[in-house]
Amino acid sequence: MAPLRESSGDPVLPDPPQGPLHVARARASFPWKELALFWEGEDTLRFKKAIFSALENDPLFAHPRGSRLSVEKYQELNFLRCKRVFEYDFLPVGDMLDSLPRVLALIECLGMYDWSLAVKFFLHVLTFGSAIYSSGSERHLKYLPKIFSLEIFGCFALTEVSHGSNTKGIRTTAHYDPSTQEFIIHSPDFEAAKFWVGNMGKTATHAVVFAQLYTPGGQCHGLHPFLVQIRDPKTLLPMPGVMVGDIGKKLGQNGLDNGFAMFHKVRIPRQDLLNRSGDVTPEGAYVTHVKDVGQRFSESLGSLSSGRVAIVGMSVVNLKLAVSIALRFSATRRQFGPTDKEEVPVLQYPMQQWRLLPYLAAAYALDHFFKSLFLDLGELQQGLLGKDRSVRQAELGREIHALSSAGKPLASWTAQRGIQECREACGGHGYLAMNRLGDLRDDNDPNCTYEGDNSVLLQQTSRYLLGLLARRGPGGARIESPLKTVDFLDGYADILGRRFEGSSPEDLLDSSVPLAAYEWLVCYLLRESHQKLSREKRSGKSDFEAINDCQVYHCRPLALAFLELTVVRRFHEHTHQPRVPPPLRAVLRRLSALYALWSLSQHTALLYRGGYFSGERAGKVLESAILALCAQLKDDAVALVDVIAPPDFILDSPIGRADGELGCRSAPPRSGHRGGVSSPHCTPGPQGFQQPSALDPVP
Amino acid sequence: MAPLRESSGDPVLPDPPQGPLHVARARASFPWKELALFWEGEDTLRFKKAIFSALENDPLFAHPRGSRLSVEKYQELNFLRCKRVFEYDFLPVGDMLDSLPRVLALIECLGMYDWSLAVKFFLHVLTFGSAIYSSGSERHLKYLPKIFSLEIFGCFALTEVSHGSNTKGIRTTAHYDPSTQEFIIHSPDFEAAKFWVGNMGKTATHAVVFAQLYTPGGQCHGLHPFLVQIRDPKTLLPMPGVMVGDIGKKLGQNGLDNGFAMFHKVRIPRQDLLNRSGDVTPEGAYVTHVKDVGQRFSESLGSLSSGRVAIVGMSVVNLKLAVSIALRFSATRRQFGPTDKEEVPVLQYPMQQWRLLPYLAAAYALDHFFKSLFLDLGELQQGLLGKDRSVRQAELGREIHALSSAGKPLASWTAQRGIQECREACGGHGYLAMNRLGDLRDDNDPNCTYEGDNSVLLQQTSRYLLGLLARRGPGGARIESPLKTVDFLDGYADILGRRFEGSSPEDLLDSSVPLAAYEWLVCYLLRESHQKLSREKRSGKSDFEAINDCQVYHCRPLALAFLELTVVRRFHEHTHQPRVPPPLRAVLRRLSALYALWSLSQHTALLYRGGYFSGERAGKVLESAILALCAQLKDDAVALVDVIAPPDFILDSPIGRADGELGCRSAPPRSGHRGGVSSPHCTPGPQGFQQPSALDPVP
Repeated sequence: MAPLRESSGDPVLPDPPQGPLHVARARASFPWKELALFWEGEDTLRFKKAIFSALENDPLFAHPRGSRLSVEKYQELNFLRCKRVFEYDFLPVGDMLDSLPRVLALIECLGMYDWSLAVKFFLHVLTFGSAIYSSGSERHLKYLPKIFSLEIFGCFALTEVSHGSNTKGIRTTAHYDPSTQEFIIHSPDFEAAKFWVGNMGKTATHAVVFAQLYTPGGQCHGLHPFLVQIRDPKTLLPMPGVMVGDIGKKLGQNGLDNGFAMFHKVRIPRQDLLNRSGDVTPEGAYVTHVKDVGQRFSESLGSLSSGRVAIVGMSVVNLKLAVSIALRFSATRRQFGPTDKEEVPVLQYPMQQWRLLPYLAAAYALDHFFKSLFLDLGELQQGLLGKDRSVRQAELGREIHALSSAGKPLASWTAQRGIQECREACGGHGYLAMNRLGDLRDDNDPNCTYEGDNSVLLQQTSRYLLGLLARRGPGGARIESPLKTVDFLDGYADILGRRFEGSSPEDLLDSSVPLAAYEWLVCYLLRESHQKLSREKRSGKSDFEAINDCQVYHCRPLALAFLELTVVRRFHEHTHQPRVPPPLRAVLRRLSALYALWSLSQHTALLYRGGYFSGERAGKVLESAILALCAQLKDDAVALVDVIAPPDFILDSPIGRADGELGCRSAPPRSGHRGGVSSPHCTPGPQGFQQPSALDPVP
Repeated sequence: MAPLRESSGDPVLPDPPQGPLHVARARASFPWKELALFWEGEDTLRFKKAIFSALENDPLFAHPRGSRLSVEKYQELNFLRCKRVFEYDFLPVGDMLDSLPRVLALIECLGMYDWSLAVKFFLHVLTFGSAIYSSGSERHLKYLPKIFSLEIFGCFALTEVSHGSNTKGIRTTAHYDPSTQEFIIHSPDFEAAKFWVGNMGKTATHAVVFAQLYTPGGQCHGLHPFLVQIRDPKTLLPMPGVMVGDIGKKLGQNGLDNGFAMFHKVRIPRQDLLNRSGDVTPEGAYVTHVKDVGQRFSESLGSLSSGRVAIVGMSVVNLKLAVSIALRFSATRRQFGPTDKEEVPVLQYPMQQWRLLPYLAAAYALDHFFKSLFLDLGELQQGLLGKDRSVRQAELGREIHALSSAGKPLASWTAQRGIQECREACGGHGYLAMNRLGDLRDDNDPNCTYEGDNSVLLQQTSRYLLGLLARRGPGGARIESPLKTVDFLDGYADILGRRFEGSSPEDLLDSSVPLAAYEWLVCYLLRESHQKLSREKRSGKSDFEAINDCQVYHCRPLALAFLELTVVRRFHEHTHQPRVPPPLRAVLRRLSALYALWSLSQHTALLYRGGYFSGERAGKVLESAILALCAQLKDDAVALVDVIAPPDFILDSPIGRADGELGCRSAPPRSGHRGGVSSPHCTPGPQGFQQPSALDPVP
């Protein structure tokens, strides 16, 4: 691999500052800059550096951010920052479709700074803009320049007070009136108010509103998207008939103005129906190229996937930030020791390693999974835009739907648990708001429930797998899919006959071993789920009841195990390919093995129960291998963090500083730096220093 | 049991208001008021009602509270509320020692309202006040009236910037100067600043400061408590030489002003050494009745236990509130259904039951455990005050130390996970701040790390258990303890020979079955830990290293399993005693069995690995029994919540209202009610309703 071309004045990857972390860095087994180059590629590294530098040098992005502001102030500042990001034009529209890695990098950079900002930006450009582009037709192209010039500001209004996961139950109506050639958008009652809609609370001027389309005579044609103006762009006052407002404080992402809206017989032009899947003639006849409501609904699955894939990425970013903070802190914080005099860094304790290093491995494994899934999604969307109606395209849509429906739960839960573990592993310092672990947890929190509650979403994936098994039948067709994530199921019967054969921890130090175990596990859970579902149906239960009775211990773990297998497989292949530079091979393979074994260890009970494991030894070598990998990786932890952590200004956590200074000894001032690494943000430092207080003196 | 005596005008347990939850309530298998009476006792019910009513009728306690205020406003309001609680004098000092159940009830009531308030109150009265009473002597009694009149306001300053868990490493010094008969309190550097101290940030006038005591000549006599005035009570300005301030925003409990302090050669009278365990004569000689520093340190274990026991209780209260909110919401919120027309309450789904009902059972099991442990602690403290130096008293101290050191981790983690599950199980509504699940999670958060990080604390318990095994030896003395929590270990070898014999889910529907499994599990983990530790030591490792290498998969699960066993055993005994009223027996035993089996199911891998389970069937019947118990309990869930939930005003969660109204249909106004159940708090409702905005109009 070609070395990074550096101009001496402004290196793409500057050396970390000197400080207490220097000792830990010096112990690394590999050159971290080479891993950064392998992991991101040079173009992405340069692109990210440019974005980070722009934010760091712009006073509008100076701290504080997040929960340290009032909601009102935070929302106002966030909107101004969003406008400024448009002005920077980091990624011109024309380049977006051609450079998916740069889109990814832009999401990551803005999200690392603040998810409220990133989500606000992308809801407008990608969610709102794409909905108009991909659900509309030529007559809607006129809106696109207005979107990019911010002449209008948009939101995507699908969910209602009473219907989140169950989108079919949405009750907003759009009646067509041929006498004026208008649709009448109406919310029948408060429970049908649009709710949760990001950007709607205070800033959006236009909304893509999903409503049940009725033609004259009263026939309902199902859910369709309409473009509705909700506010005057000059005054931001609501349009007549629109009742719109902010839903109030949330647990996280409070810079984003989530809103609600009720429509009282709001009339919009016929042309503002986004008519890709169905249209109404001026006279009021409904026309569509799609055969039935069900098929129209299926066509929209692709666009639902993109939201879920994005959430996988958001979760991964949160996890990266949290492990960066906790591992840098753990490498310098000393507590207890072999004698009363000598204290050791807490990362030297096997317990601390075991609490944190698997999440570091998970951050790498899920990051790779996210990037690969994002590229798969790009392929799907190219097909949708090109009106590809091939069997392969349909299969690809189903496969990506299955991957994103379990990928979102796996990634968001891993991040949620990982952040909590990081926060606890930093003790009291993790409990201080300024160290950001609380904001990370809170901003990650909605990832577990929006775009489909995790537990409910997993059903989509198990249904896909059970469907494959059913289609195969005795002597049926091969099981295969465009992305090959399910091809192994073709060996279902053989795989179920496999048994674990490792007898020492050394046998487990490569991810091929847990990979084989995962294949067995998924086949076992698939067989168990299939048998259970058949039994429930035979006992006379309805399909609805039978499926619900199979979730907890069958379909739910099936979907999760399948996704873990997919993540493990992709990371295993990525780390074992020949183009991995030799100095990086050992550390990457250890990360791959650690993530795989640690994930697998949650299923040890099933490995025993189904007979894959037998005897005490199997379970013990699994545990020993995990601890051995933690011990092997502990000296690489700080260098592995250097690869994934953003600059200090962006990370914004005094205990996570690159130099490892925990106290108030501030770093030398850096040119062009206006923000917060200097003393007001050092930890633990005086905030709200004692002054005559507004409190009553004690009597 | 005598029925509750009610005066018709003001019932102790009023009927729940009519509303959507009525249907769910009517399905309960037992009379909830009888359970409330059995669970709490009439005196406690009346006492709690009086406190709740006082708060509800006092404008100072009107909402908002918690994260919806700025930190400064919240702290100010919290201090005023704390003063008001003193004025109410719910529990006169003289009654405190004689009525532990009322102390418990007061903690619970204030904590259910707001932990910032409860902690502020109890840090002053119990932590600060008790430290003076129990660590001081007659010369300090003069301070007690000042504490109760609020003439002084106190805090307890132990931890420092660089030393939390490792209290032996504390570096604040107290040098005695015989020329003036004063101690000179000094912080050598910023890392030795007192830190995290509750009440110190803005309001405390006095602190109990722990410092290393030096006599002339330079001999150090170890850590001692000193009473130090830190602020002028009239102006709240710092005393000369004291640098004191607020540590800044935390993840939770922001109404509490946590502070830091540095002392620059602050002189205090010799008499302000709290001299129970050691004193200095006017001439500068050190005198003590305790033999060595180690013994003095051990004597303080009892007081450390009280903090941990209190945290068990705090965690249980948080869990009770969270399950109350989530279960009431789940019993009325409808989503999906067997047909597109008909939607069912989400609590009808086995997945939702499985997510929530085990946490309801845990709330009951841990509540009972907390109350029993609190009474045990009362016995210990009576002995300490009476200077009981018997072997039994010492054994009791060790046992309670072991129980509280694992009880705090178990309770705080169960609450943390339970609150998160409740928040996710309420979907987007759980993500709205007004529904309080975020505040509950944040206020519970410090429970996982203060008074000892959970993972570190667990070592105390495993060390106790390993010590018992070592003392027993071959042919050694019986294993027994004052509270009998470890007596079963006497049958260690026999228990290890046990095997699981259930073959159908029905065999597991009583908690005696998981109780037996837990005994085996603890013995197994104890043997494994003992053998592992011996192997590590034989391999030449130091004790420090050997112990650290045994934590992750040995000592840690050992401590947790032992505590779970203790909780299961106490709840089993409580629910199976003859005095349980017959109508309550079935439901209580189901709760006991569900908690026990669900907890045990986290250890299925070990049950298989160690041979207690064999064959597929064992694991399957365990899962089936858990689901069967969930199905049996689902119709009792709302009534079980009625027993543990406070009035709506205190619960302060629109989706958790007793009538089950989720929308904006507000309940009829209640007399004397000034607070927040009416429309400004209904969910989901307009907050920040659209007005001309301070934001720039979109250009």
